[in-house]
Amino acid sequence: MSQMLYEGKAKKIFLTDDPSTLLVSYKDDATAFNGKKKAVLPGKGRLNNLISAKLFGILNKKGINNHFVKRLSDNEQLVKAVEIIPLEVVVRNIAAGSLSKRLGLEEGKPLKQPIIEFYFKDDELGDPLINDDHIRMMQIADDTELNLIRQAAQEVNRVLTDLFDGIGVLLVDFKLEFGKLKTNGNIVLADEISPDTCRLWDKKTHEKLDKDVFRRDIGDLPQVYEKLLERLEDVQ
Amino acid sequence: MSQMLYEGKAKKIFLTDDPSTLLVSYKDDATAFNGKKKAVLPGKGRLNNLISAKLFGILNKKGINNHFVKRLSDNEQLVKAVEIIPLEVVVRNIAAGSLSKRLGLEEGKPLKQPIIEFYFKDDELGDPLINDDHIRMMQIADDTELNLIRQAAQEVNRVLTDLFDGIGVLLVDFKLEFGKLKTNGNIVLADEISPDTCRLWDKKTHEKLDKDVFRRDIGDLPQVYEKLLERLEDVQ
Ligand SMILES: Nc1ncnc2c1ncn2[C@@H]1O[C@H](COP(=O)(O)OP(=O)(O)O)[C@@H](O)[C@H]1O
Ligand SMILES: Nc1ncnc2c1ncn2[C@@H]1O[C@H](COP(=O)(O)OP(=O)(O)O)[C@@H](O)[C@H]1O
Ligand SMILES: [Mg+2]
Ligand SMILES: [Mg+2]
Repeated sequence: MSQMLYEGKAKKIFLTDDPSTLLVSYKDDATAFNGKKKAVLPGKGRLNNLISAKLFGILNKKGINNHFVKRLSDNEQLVKAVEIIPLEVVVRNIAAGSLSKRLGLEEGKPLKQPIIEFYFKDDELGDPLINDDHIRMMQIADDTELNLIRQAAQEVNRVLTDLFDGIGVLLVDFKLEFGKLKTNGNIVLADEISPDTCRLWDKKTHEKLDKDVFRRDIGDLPQVYEKLLERLEDVQ
Repeated sequence: MSQMLYEGKAKKIFLTDDPSTLLVSYKDDATAFNGKKKAVLPGKGRLNNLISAKLFGILNKKGINNHFVKRLSDNEQLVKAVEIIPLEVVVRNIAAGSLSKRLGLEEGKPLKQPIIEFYFKDDELGDPLINDDHIRMMQIADDTELNLIRQAAQEVNRVLTDLFDGIGVLLVDFKLEFGKLKTNGNIVLADEISPDTCRLWDKKTHEKLDKDVFRRDIGDLPQVYEKLLERLEDVQ
């Protein structure tokens, strides 16, 4: 086995022979509330690896530059090495979760326009919401980079909203991470897109098909993710 | 006595014979941490009324449109009636308070550029930090209005930073409120600018000359505000 570069809450990242490429190994660990709630859920790693690989493959085909190279096995995929920009870029189409809390909005209220939020990716600080002035001051990204990230996030939202709509699923909100390619510094979409990082509701029943079943103890996570993967099977 | 329009944590607002004008009466009440800490501090109302009147008068002379008409008595001033825009507009020159907490910055670290933050003025929600997308979605202000508010806040910052510098005081940060004039809908600076709503540090000793002496129990608030008022006496 090659050397581990780092281990996060959901994935391990390994070096490969090629310095421009990393191996991502998805773990079965589930965490919520900034790591305060924890469990090991067998099968979760495989499911997120398959779902994320599928979604990044589709985004690649749609011309949205991202880190995904190919899937290697049930739990592993190859990605381009990036330096992660420490922002959690959240896109919201329907009020839920922390937005509902922050603004006193009913969960399920559709937003007239998608909302983008930036959180500073820092577990110790609890991933605080920040604004463009904070991002500039902390030199997390300059204005051009932030613009590019905003536009890419909007594009990802358009593609994924359509895609999920096609399988009877509402894309309520999701979190993206971007990074600068080790090779040329270009900013690309990285990390993962999975039911761990999206809120997905069945269009008809509003049944939750995402990590909220774990956060709120309202269902069997691997079973729910498996059903989502099945629905995604025929999507090109 | 004329009819009270509303009572806030620091001031009472009364109707006058002229519907375009309101009377503000400054109270001796001190509150902090969203009303969780409370005290009555005799003299505080007078001091904030005098200080705020002085500062708004100077801003008027510098061409920064605001609600201030004239001071009536120790505790009272006349202002133009506005519909308050429910934003707490915070301008920061030096890291302190919630910014230091949010981003893990040392208190006292000067910021290369002023930072502007918008908080949704809503006691029940705890005045949460929000971004431009939230403001648009909640229809709190449109992009043109937000631009105007940002620019006015920067101008106020330039004027007040200079003014306080002239009396040996650092303007660390402050909170502004804006409103739409009842008469013509124009946006003007409103509410108060006082040591209740600013962080002010002695330039040499970094001694706190603001409400933090109450928040942190590190001094006699009326005494501290009185000294600040004395320093302001000769400022034109
Ligand atoms: N292409 C990539 N290159 C380098 N690092 C990446 C890439 N994609 C994701 N990462 C990072 O891998 C780390 C591990 O992922 P994860 O377990 O989700 O971590 P976290 O606990 O921070 O959520 C994260 O810091 C993530 O930002
Ligand atoms: N010119 C004005 N016209 C109308 N309302 C005003 C004006 N200036 C300030 N206000 C409002 O007066 C209210 C009372 O002030 P204050 O006691 O500071 O209230 P709060 O508890 O909301 O801080 C606040 O809602 C403030 O926004
Ligand atoms: Mg992660
Ligand atoms: Mg107030």
